[in-house]
Amino acid sequence: MKKVVVIGGVAAGLKSAAKVRREDPEAQITVFEKGSLISYGACGMPYYVGGLVADVNEFMKTPAGAMRNPGFFKNVKDIDVRIRTLVTAIDRAAKTVTVKNLETNEETAVPYDKLVIATGASPVRPPLPGIELGGIHQFWHPDDAVAVRSGIDAGRIKSAVVIGAGLVGMEMAEAFKTRGVDVTVIEMQERVFPAFLDVEIAGSVAKYATENGIKLLLGEKVERFNGEGTVREVVTDKRVIPADIVVLSIGVRPNTELAKAAGLAIGPTGAIAVNEYMETSDPDIYAGGDCVENTNIISGKKVFAPMGSTANKHGRVIGENIGGNRVKFRGVLNTVAVKVLNLHVGKTGLTEREAKELGYQYVTAMVAGPDKPHYMPGSKPVTIKLIVEADSRKLLGAQAFGEGEVVKRIDVMAAALTMGMTIDDLFDMDLAYAPPYSSPIDNVAVAANAIMNKLEGKLKGISSLTAKEKMDEGKAIFLDVRSPEEFNQIRLANCRGVKNIPLGQLRTRLSEIGKDDEVIAFCKISLRGYEAACILEGAGFENVKVMEGGIVSWPYACEK
Amino acid sequence: MKKVVVIGGVAAGLKSAAKVRREDPEAQITVFEKGSLISYGACGMPYYVGGLVADVNEFMKTPAGAMRNPGFFKNVKDIDVRIRTLVTAIDRAAKTVTVKNLETNEETAVPYDKLVIATGASPVRPPLPGIELGGIHQFWHPDDAVAVRSGIDAGRIKSAVVIGAGLVGMEMAEAFKTRGVDVTVIEMQERVFPAFLDVEIAGSVAKYATENGIKLLLGEKVERFNGEGTVREVVTDKRVIPADIVVLSIGVRPNTELAKAAGLAIGPTGAIAVNEYMETSDPDIYAGGDCVENTNIISGKKVFAPMGSTANKHGRVIGENIGGNRVKFRGVLNTVAVKVLNLHVGKTGLTEREAKELGYQYVTAMVAGPDKPHYMPGSKPVTIKLIVEADSRKLLGAQAFGEGEVVKRIDVMAAALTMGMTIDDLFDMDLAYAPPYSSPIDNVAVAANAIMNKLEGKLKGISSLTAKEKMDEGKAIFLDVRSPEEFNQIRLANCRGVKNIPLGQLRTRLSEIGKDDEVIAFCKISLRGYEAACILEGAGFENVKVMEGGIVSWPYACEK
Repeated sequence: MKKVVVIGGVAAGLKSAAKVRREDPEAQITVFEKGSLISYGACGMPYYVGGLVADVNEFMKTPAGAMRNPGFFKNVKDIDVRIRTLVTAIDRAAKTVTVKNLETNEETAVPYDKLVIATGASPVRPPLPGIELGGIHQFWHPDDAVAVRSGIDAGRIKSAVVIGAGLVGMEMAEAFKTRGVDVTVIEMQERVFPAFLDVEIAGSVAKYATENGIKLLLGEKVERFNGEGTVREVVTDKRVIPADIVVLSIGVRPNTELAKAAGLAIGPTGAIAVNEYMETSDPDIYAGGDCVENTNIISGKKVFAPMGSTANKHGRVIGENIGGNRVKFRGVLNTVAVKVLNLHVGKTGLTEREAKELGYQYVTAMVAGPDKPHYMPGSKPVTIKLIVEADSRKLLGAQAFGEGEVVKRIDVMAAALTMGMTIDDLFDMDLAYAPPYSSPIDNVAVAANAIMNKLEGKLKGISSLTAKEKMDEGKAIFLDVRSPEEFNQIRLANCRGVKNIPLGQLRTRLSEIGKDDEVIAFCKISLRGYEAACILEGAGFENVKVMEGGIVSWPYACEK
Repeated sequence: MKKVVVIGGVAAGLKSAAKVRREDPEAQITVFEKGSLISYGACGMPYYVGGLVADVNEFMKTPAGAMRNPGFFKNVKDIDVRIRTLVTAIDRAAKTVTVKNLETNEETAVPYDKLVIATGASPVRPPLPGIELGGIHQFWHPDDAVAVRSGIDAGRIKSAVVIGAGLVGMEMAEAFKTRGVDVTVIEMQERVFPAFLDVEIAGSVAKYATENGIKLLLGEKVERFNGEGTVREVVTDKRVIPADIVVLSIGVRPNTELAKAAGLAIGPTGAIAVNEYMETSDPDIYAGGDCVENTNIISGKKVFAPMGSTANKHGRVIGENIGGNRVKFRGVLNTVAVKVLNLHVGKTGLTEREAKELGYQYVTAMVAGPDKPHYMPGSKPVTIKLIVEADSRKLLGAQAFGEGEVVKRIDVMAAALTMGMTIDDLFDMDLAYAPPYSSPIDNVAVAANAIMNKLEGKLKGISSLTAKEKMDEGKAIFLDVRSPEEFNQIRLANCRGVKNIPLGQLRTRLSEIGKDDEVIAFCKISLRGYEAACILEGAGFENVKVMEGGIVSWPYACEK
């Protein structure tokens, strides 16, 4: 009877255990978890704080409402889960682990045939003065969620400071904002979601967040926390911000101490090294979840990309392989989705920054458009940025944001990336079309088409970044081809060179633009901007560009 | 200067024209349209009737609100669009078309270098007694939509009969229902969406529609219409149904008369034959949109699959090729999405019926689950059926339905099918995970995993169809492993063999089931049903199956 020991009772650990059980009804499976809770969905906690989820216990339940506690795992899956039990050492020669009962402090050696390390990751806690004060939370355990929510419910929390504009940080900012708490997010880097968004997309997301009441302090560094017993102020290199509560979300580090002490190989990212079978450098020891590194499918590079979805895939592969199969895990695309109030944001594959660093010859396009036909109620814009290898025409990565349906498009492009799709395949794909769901030409196809047009030289695009530089230099003519009504509603701010000629009048008003002028054409989404550029080029203008993404994707100020 | 003539001013025709213009600023482009409207989005008309869209002119507008009329095409794209102008003949030797001005009846010959046939399709009008009566509409032109909506607005339409339970038929049924009109759908075949849903999925959709107030008469044949001047009754082979209005939606036929008369090849489906460059048998004549046939990417077979999204892709390919490029169109997956009230339904690739007819060795699985974590508000079920080739493990097709996010999953599987993905790739895909959008293991991955388990013999599934046969024979034990509370709320109707043992008690109540019994285990979504089967098999029961899709996918009656 095979003895399987699993260290860690959250996603990868319990998934491995459950999969082993399905492969091998005879195996003796024991899971050790140092905490008192197992199998909780930490990702949902911002929605508990925000009030969408009523009971924190929901995160520990099955869809059918059963608590996933040790009793559940014993009854349903015949798996022994020992909580409040710390594994203190792995003896690879003896094939035992030393476990310590945290209630009794008793230590025992437990033998294994196969061992799974699923020790997860821990949030980074910066060694700043005042970090020991009360009210400074890391969102890594349900206790934090309960403390923060009860503080809001009781009216004790009026202002919150979130440190780090990553996933947890921005989700918590949404939660605070939803509950009417004044919220400030401080991010050391110059943009939100610095780990996965390019500058111009991050700019648009930041603009949205700011316009909707989340205060952002970018490029600002926290220096210390003031307070007596409990935090009262956050001090940065630029100002002092009052805070009833602080949320730390500056990243996580893999828990590798046990693995290191046992002499297992650690990879270049600092996480545990595993091969495609999820084996560590010891073939009897597997590792999965947030404590291991992954391979990025596009770049082939090792990455540290902790994600609940990946942890579950690891668990399946580990369980299959312990069960005697030989199953591989291909790797990740570092796909991300996040909601910031009503804005949806997503990314898959490489960012432009990564593509550049990796030395790819690439082309990008940013395209905005309605997520379904404009006449359908609820139609909202989506902006997609594609990064495509110039020679092979293969997709390298995609980012998207908007109040419209973003995540469907990200998932489609994740599938495309998985299989090495070219932009030609991407355009041709027979995606589902019906007015409640999409336009006849889906946003993904429109974006692919823009890249084709750029590669063939038919579309001379200019990014909002470069356009802003031109604007600040005061050189180019910014040709806004929307109607005067649209122009009066909202337009680029501080733009001396802006000129409003509606598209329908352009052919008859060409004399208003000099043939030598540098023209940057655009509209709400730059579809009319593209038409305008075609008209101008047809008429012999030679220095015409289209501002990609139009006004809905413009990350800088607008006037109303 | 190249002369390009386009016959037909809706999707494929105008898209071809616009693309030619972008490729060739010099070309002389003329579009002939026999009607008085061009470039309208017919697909949106049910939503105008249903009241979601206020103005029928919206279907003729650009996203920015400009009317896509001949003036627009002239001003913006320098394309001549002649409405109320019928092309009566093509002279391939002389390279001219004969056009007739429908206002003046004047005929002229117009020369072309390249010709595009985009004559579309026409709805089938069955030659039944009474078909000439007023109030019998085909939803193919905005005039029908205006007539029906104004009739509802004025209170003249209290009851409607829809003939044909296809896309337009069911969308119109939703529209009538939404407006409080009593609606009956009559379908000759035994199921809804007979063209693209397998029996058990169609059964669930029909059950939903019926429960939500759409009357369905399946396997019933219309024989005649009664009325004086205007239709008053629809007479079928089984009954007489009063009707203030009738909507015909029994399919469309490609408009091939012109092409046939010109001696162009017609394909096996009866639509115009084109190669992958969208060339007809005459290389100077292209054809695209609803009048041509397509190739199904999976089967390689020719299919007649008219769809606005495909027509636009055709238009691009035609425009590129007329412009001097050499661009191919790969074909279609016959992807479909449709909303029926709050139920989302979709399909891509082959159905099981098609896979069987084509001689594939395949395996299917039907899996239900919440579309995002159960704790998130708005989490709703999605049921996915996969059809997978047994040897290659390649996806052949997928169907899905549910009140949850269905179309995202269909689009992901369309991407998968485009690239020949296996279920292993499908499981591993790094899809976007965040609680507002999906569970850590997305429904697509869960479905892929079910197929893996079936192929390895770990999951012995039984479809709802086969389970129903067993139920009617009264042989098997239907083991419902939900909680007693869930069981009291809703359960299989007319099921003598049903037994309710909650999953958590199963290990201790095994003696209640005979070792020789045929056991069909299930729950709400059959996840617990699968756990139950594992427990029973582990305990030596040998004839245990899991009812795929659980109660949420059961297409037959339930008791409450």
